[in-house]
Amino acid sequence: MPVGGVVALTLKAISGIRIGTASAGISQTIRDDVTVFELAADTQVAAVFTKNKFCAAPVTLAKKHLKESTAKYLLINSGNANAGLGDVGLLSAQQCCQGLAAIANVEAANVLPFSTGVIGEPLPVDKLTAVLQGAVNNVAEDNWPSAAKAIMTTDTCEKGCSRTFELNGTEATITGIAKGSGMIHPNMATMLSYIATDMPIQQELLQKMLNKAADVSFNRITVDGDTSTNDAVVLMATSKVDVPLIDSQDDPRYGLFLSKLKEVCCYLAEAIVRDGEGATKLINIQVEHARSEQDAKEVAYTIAQSPLVKTAFFASNPNWGRILAAVGRANIANLNVDKVSIYLNDVCIVDAGKRAEDYTEEQGQAVMNQEEITVRVCLAQGDSKFSVLTCDLSYDYVKINAEYRS
Amino acid sequence: MPVGGVVALTLKAISGIRIGTASAGISQTIRDDVTVFELAADTQVAAVFTKNKFCAAPVTLAKKHLKESTAKYLLINSGNANAGLGDVGLLSAQQCCQGLAAIANVEAANVLPFSTGVIGEPLPVDKLTAVLQGAVNNVAEDNWPSAAKAIMTTDTCEKGCSRTFELNGTEATITGIAKGSGMIHPNMATMLSYIATDMPIQQELLQKMLNKAADVSFNRITVDGDTSTNDAVVLMATSKVDVPLIDSQDDPRYGLFLSKLKEVCCYLAEAIVRDGEGATKLINIQVEHARSEQDAKEVAYTIAQSPLVKTAFFASNPNWGRILAAVGRANIANLNVDKVSIYLNDVCIVDAGKRAEDYTEEQGQAVMNQEEITVRVCLAQGDSKFSVLTCDLSYDYVKINAEYRS
Repeated sequence: MPVGGVVALTLKAISGIRIGTASAGISQTIRDDVTVFELAADTQVAAVFTKNKFCAAPVTLAKKHLKESTAKYLLINSGNANAGLGDVGLLSAQQCCQGLAAIANVEAANVLPFSTGVIGEPLPVDKLTAVLQGAVNNVAEDNWPSAAKAIMTTDTCEKGCSRTFELNGTEATITGIAKGSGMIHPNMATMLSYIATDMPIQQELLQKMLNKAADVSFNRITVDGDTSTNDAVVLMATSKVDVPLIDSQDDPRYGLFLSKLKEVCCYLAEAIVRDGEGATKLINIQVEHARSEQDAKEVAYTIAQSPLVKTAFFASNPNWGRILAAVGRANIANLNVDKVSIYLNDVCIVDAGKRAEDYTEEQGQAVMNQEEITVRVCLAQGDSKFSVLTCDLSYDYVKINAEYRS
Repeated sequence: MPVGGVVALTLKAISGIRIGTASAGISQTIRDDVTVFELAADTQVAAVFTKNKFCAAPVTLAKKHLKESTAKYLLINSGNANAGLGDVGLLSAQQCCQGLAAIANVEAANVLPFSTGVIGEPLPVDKLTAVLQGAVNNVAEDNWPSAAKAIMTTDTCEKGCSRTFELNGTEATITGIAKGSGMIHPNMATMLSYIATDMPIQQELLQKMLNKAADVSFNRITVDGDTSTNDAVVLMATSKVDVPLIDSQDDPRYGLFLSKLKEVCCYLAEAIVRDGEGATKLINIQVEHARSEQDAKEVAYTIAQSPLVKTAFFASNPNWGRILAAVGRANIANLNVDKVSIYLNDVCIVDAGKRAEDYTEEQGQAVMNQEEITVRVCLAQGDSKFSVLTCDLSYDYVKINAEYRS
């Protein structure tokens, strides 16, 4: 169960996006594991992908198709990542796109493929293509919840959210879903997210907004420091609302839309960490007063990735020495340790580089007993800051990753 | 129990080094937790220390004493790291040195202090100084095994070794002990090691040899990526063997001595990883044919620190996709993934960037079932290489670190 409990999804349909799912038997459990998104004509598509050099075949192919053609369908399977297979993997991804293209009467290049699951096992193309007709037959605008479920791997719950807001007198909606709970780290990790809006937005601007939103959300989470081979965030704008195109940052609607998009992305990113493999706690690491954002980021990730810090959180143990040791080994220049202060929520645990005078173990324990904790580190070097969301490291993380073949 | 089982220590005494231990009740269990090394006159001392910016008070003070004076005693306590306490910690370390100095009739600056254990709790100076007379009273040359035990924290066994060899017709001996099993990472981690030889070696040359030996041993191990605030390796040369001073790299004895010193350091470093917290497997990550040693190192540590790779080893799961994904996210330039090959022992699992054609799951499983495994990654970019020793990530790692306050 995710930190904070399971939240019921209330996902608003997006006019112009229809979704169908099917069970191809690729996943180890019997459930829908294939998802098809059908995009209305004129839908603009933006995407960001994993930066892992061993990117999976579907990532390579999706990038190629996005460049050469207009996206009319997304084809997603869970249970198999189609990664680490060389030319065979690329051929498999192509065959899947061709399979859907033939049924939907489009070109293969109009299909963007996505896969998540086991690395290095051949994708069972026949199984997948055999259920595509069924998935296409059942497409509907209200199938977002089914898709949220069908794209899951080790996730314990579906993740999604909608925001409806007034944009210059018009009601606009953004709906997004995401999956991912292990191999989570900046630059996309093992996560997939599909977000759509009914507003008309120019493609270049859509891509720019997605980059900005991903930078403050999906690129600021880490579960285990591992970046996956496969993952992607796709943002679609269907233009179904009949208002003038948003095509410039000077459009007064740009700022509000971007802020709502960031809200959706941050919600989804946080949902992924809450459902981090084995997670029992949500930890927000905020590093402030750094000389540069890069320094703040380095310190934040050093803390967020420390197994000793993460096991201390799991144990609800106010072991601030481990946080201090992580700050001390972070690769930043000229840190004056005598000026560093560290807070657990509002409790000052380290002041001027040493245990705070007023600090008591009871105060630390009271914070550590909570499910959601903020660690704030002040470096006293400048005005830059960076924050990252992570979770604790529990027995269940080991159990899940020792038993699951991801 | 360490990977490979417990090895009985056979430690040769070093003429000129006498050791005494005592129980001060600083450690949570009742056992000797204070160790005193008494160094004969003319003993030359070299040392390397943690690079963590939050280095502990004893590290600061030991460096200062080494610089200003001649080391005549080492004073080590386990159970409390005396770190993260600011001026109070420094005062505690000074009081401990003064306490031993008064008993031994030397100056405080002749004492090098070392601490390992919980960070951020005040060191119980009175408890420690109260047992120093007893420790000094029982100093003896054959107390290396007692010291190996007294410096332990979460270690499950004592670690030490001796090498006796002929050096230009003279019998020379090197004996060393070490502790450490968590917070283990290059640049000293939570580890302490004390090594001595009876040969006469000039101080600058001794320091140079220690740096070289540490670089290929203690600086190539990682258990959990955390570098501690406290740790140190000390190398002592007592000059008790009556032969000419080794004072130059041109001395024909230099090369052989250095190689034996490296042997001792590598043995001790490996013993630390074998006893890594919760370790069930010893993993040797070798990265070859890299463009630079830095690149090879980056790839090696990215693999060695991946929780997904480490849990796969714990599960004896030949999940080569996780190794491949770690290589792919390592921060090196221009990697051609289509040329990368990966071996588990002699089994080629990835060839030309994809699953090797002849590879079978049975072959991978046969290797993964072993206790000691070599992962070899060929980058096909150049002639540089780097290797690092690590262990797997098990339930017990989480258990130990959730329950122990390190």
